[in-house]
Parts: sequence; structure tokens; C-alpha cells
Amino acid sequence: MTRVAFQGRRGAYSESAAYHLFGTAIQVHPVDTFEEIHRMVQSGAVDGGVIPIENSTAGSILDNYDLLFKYRLPIVGEVKLQIEHCLMALPGTKVKDLREVISHPQALAQCSNFFATHPATKAVAFFDTAGSAEEIAQKNLVGTGAIASAFAAKHYGLDILIDPLANLPGNNFTRFFAIQREPLPRDIAKHTKSSLVFAPQKNQAGILYLALGCFASRHINLIRIESRPKTGSPWEYLFYLDYEGNPSMPHVAEALADLEKISAFVYSLGSYANGELRTVSFQ
Amino acid sequence: MTRVAFQGRRGAYSESAAYHLFGTAIQVHPVDTFEEIHRMVQSGAVDGGVIPIENSTAGSILDNYDLLFKYRLPIVGEVKLQIEHCLMALPGTKVKDLREVISHPQALAQCSNFFATHPATKAVAFFDTAGSAEEIAQKNLVGTGAIASAFAAKHYGLDILIDPLANLPGNNFTRFFAIQREPLPRDIAKHTKSSLVFAPQKNQAGILYLALGCFASRHINLIRIESRPKTGSPWEYLFYLDYEGNPSMPHVAEALADLEKISAFVYSLGSYANGELRTVSFQ
Repeated sequence: MTRVAFQGRRGAYSESAAYHLFGTAIQVHPVDTFEEIHRMVQSGAVDGGVIPIENSTAGSILDNYDLLFKYRLPIVGEVKLQIEHCLMALPGTKVKDLREVISHPQALAQCSNFFATHPATKAVAFFDTAGSAEEIAQKNLVGTGAIASAFAAKHYGLDILIDPLANLPGNNFTRFFAIQREPLPRDIAKHTKSSLVFAPQKNQAGILYLALGCFASRHINLIRIESRPKTGSPWEYLFYLDYEGNPSMPHVAEALADLEKISAFVYSLGSYANGELRTVSFQ
Repeated sequence: MTRVAFQGRRGAYSESAAYHLFGTAIQVHPVDTFEEIHRMVQSGAVDGGVIPIENSTAGSILDNYDLLFKYRLPIVGEVKLQIEHCLMALPGTKVKDLREVISHPQALAQCSNFFATHPATKAVAFFDTAGSAEEIAQKNLVGTGAIASAFAAKHYGLDILIDPLANLPGNNFTRFFAIQREPLPRDIAKHTKSSLVFAPQKNQAGILYLALGCFASRHINLIRIESRPKTGSPWEYLFYLDYEGNPSMPHVAEALADLEKISAFVYSLGSYANGELRTVSFQ
């Protein structure tokens, strides 16, 4: 059975992404940090991993960009998951009983309207969304709420008090990557999207414009660009690009050859099928 | 006397940046959050604010990009500060006595080699670097260390045990912006750098390439580009640009006019003197 690592506790949005990416016949391994996922995939302790890379309200999950570069594990899939936050608490609890609500800081921020309209209820940061539901159930925390998925409420035996809870329900998506030790074959028609990281040869004026031009001049659509500092070289950057196509296509191969001419290095991070939009489910 | 707000506690790196940016004859106002700085500057409760915008090892401070857009307070200055982390504790403490060391998660990460070579000492996240020194002094925490500036050690009466402590000493810089209610005049020769935020008209293929071309075709050097999600529009982005020059220069004015043609909006965030590199000092 395929073993898949994700960060968080049972009922995490990442766990739902794991089923969408690797199928439901998998054995899931919840871990505490993103780096553990990369380490376990690298060592073969698990067959695959699931990492969040970007949220539509909070932006890029920068740690995972850095880890993709550090471990260089190929991206083999992508999914966009609609995040649906609920407010939950021990059975029988009413909203007015809640003195505090715990969750991941991003989830608290995405539900800030609730706290603005319920000033007696305090928002308290916790390391994980599903973990906050687990905490309430395990420690029998009366008067404490959690913000997590409906599945987490069910899994930990909590009541759902408000659903949906987010400020902008229906507008919150997280993009996840599946990573494995071996890349997918590139020359497969459905692998229509690829990711790479490159470092410009030097911090020269207009270098990013020249780099994007390698793709634009061949009508290759750039879907996303992200920059990260280069360790040990202040004010120099690595650039991460997601583009349409894969390196087995002649016009992409030409673009990459041109990009290499102006780069210190270009590393492929994988080619995969464009991620579909899915709702949270656990089977 | 000029009143200047910064985030953190007395002895914070941001306080040192405040003296470099506004002079030493200022009254400093330490606050808990970046948003409070923007609110106090907007309301006139203080005359200016200091915000970290980018660190050379951890990358952009994304919250402050979002707040620059939300409050639209003009950037009036820039400084690059060399960050010099020290390990400190109550007087008489030895390194081997430390059961835990508290500091901001970024500072802990930047000193991770210390924890790798001292496995008996645990790294514990705290909200602020200088605040961690204050915490030890105020609560008389025996066996706890803090990572902060040498000035914080002096200010709170702690001993410095290791200096420098960072993995890559000399490679850690933070770029700070000064913000005020009124922008500086643009047409002054020393205001050689400007910042703006723009939203592409639509998420069209190659739009970023076209946008950068407005500048590249006129040999205007782009120093930095950062993207952030557009609230309520999943997978659409705002782009922040720092460029050389200011809008009173004809070739810059032309570039901005071209950029406006392909943008939903372009907002100037200010023109200012290019930030010099400084070391931590408090007077």
C-alpha cells in the first residue's frame, strides 16, 4: 500500500489533498514539519509526500519553496483544494460559551470577521488546524473552539457550531504538490505543466526580463513566479517558475536552453498534470 | 520631537533602523504589530514608522507588503541594516547551563548551527528578539537564553555568552522602509529609487513580461519584484516593484504611462534615497 506523508494531524486539509493526489487506497503518515516530509520521501520511509505550496489568500508557503530546492525531490502532481473552515467545540457547546478559539494563525486570519463580531472570544494561535480539534477532544477543553475542516470535527467527535466560518467563503483555495523520489516521464501529453528553479548568472539589470523573454518569445505561458533569497548571497535571488508544457516539447527545450545561457543554474522540479479544483473529502 | 513607531521591544533591530532613518533625536514608540505602526502613522499618533520589508536570509516580510497596499502610506526612506545576533542570559550563566533559548523563529533559524551542536538546549519560539531578552530579565529566567542584539543585552542587563551566534555571520541584512503620512518630493536628485504596486488588467499570458518590458525598454533597472495574492480573486496577483529613478524623470514617466495601459491600477508607494548599508547602533 502506498505510504504518503503530510504535515499536520488526521483531518488536516493536507490529508484530503493526499487522497486526491495519490488515491484513497493509501496509508497516511501525519508528521510535524514540512522538512520531515521531504526527509521521509528522500529516505524511502514513505513513497510520496504532499506539500501545500500556495494559498489564495495568504500567498506562497515559502518554506516549501526552500525545501523543494534543498531536497530537489520531483513534483509529480498538483491539486487545488477548496478550503472550508468550520467552527467546532465539545458536544453541547454554544457559540456564546466560547472564551477562546484555537487554530493555525492563517485560519484565524481568514476568519477574522468572527472575532470582530464576537469580542468576548479570543483568537489563540495553534500549530495546526486539525491539531486544534484534536487538542480540544484529547484535553476535553470546555469553552474552547477550534477552526478546522468538517472532517476534523467528525474525526475528533466535536460539534460543528458555524459552517462556513471564513470571511470570504468559497474564495479560499490551497494549491498542493505531490512529491516522490523519481520524476514522472516528461514526454506524456497530460504532463502539461512544469516547474523549475533558476539562479541568474549575476544580479544584472533586466535579468528577470531576459529570463521571462525566453518563454514569452515562444508563447509559453508562465503561470507563477516566486523569488527567494540565495543563501549566503545577500540581495541575490533564486526564481521559481511554473510554466505550461514540458521539456520534451521542442519550443520548451529551446526556451530552457536560452535560459541556461543567462543562468548560473537551471534545475527542473518536475512535469505533471495541471491541478484540478477539488473540494475537501477524505475518501 | 519626532515620534517614530516600530514593532518589537526596546533594543529591537527596528529601533536601530529608526535612528538611522529618522536621526537620533527622536522619541521611539515600541508597538506589538506591524499594523499598529501603519495605523499610528495614518492617525497622526506618531510622525513616522519603521517597517522591515526584506531579510537577506528569510526573504520578504509579506505582511508589510500587504499593509503598504492597505494603508498606502508613502515610503520616504530605506536602510539596510547588518543584523548581529548574540546569545545572552542572566549574569553568571554559562552556555552549558542553558536548557532553552527563546527568540523570534527567524532568529532561531538563522542560528540553527548552535542548536545542532548543543542538543541539550532547546530552541523555543518567542514573538520578538529584543522581547526575548526583556522576558528573561523581567521574569528572572534562570537557565534560559535569548537571541537578540548586543544593545538588547545591555539594555536588559544580561551577559553576552556568544557573539556572533549566527550560522553565517556578516551575511544577515534586513532592509527597512521609513513611512510617513506625506510623500517626499519626487523631483529631487537624491530620490533615486521608487516603489510601486500594480495589478495586471487580467491574468493574461505574458503580462508580467510586458510589464517588465515597460522598464527594460527604457533601461530602467528593476531592483526587486514581489507578488502577493489579490484578496477575493484566487490566483490573481498584485506585483510590487522597486526601480531606479523617480516619476519626475521623463523616461520613468513614459514607463509608468505604458504600465498603466496594461494594468487595472498602478499606485506609487514613494520615491526616496537608495538605502545605505549600516551596522546596528542605538545612538
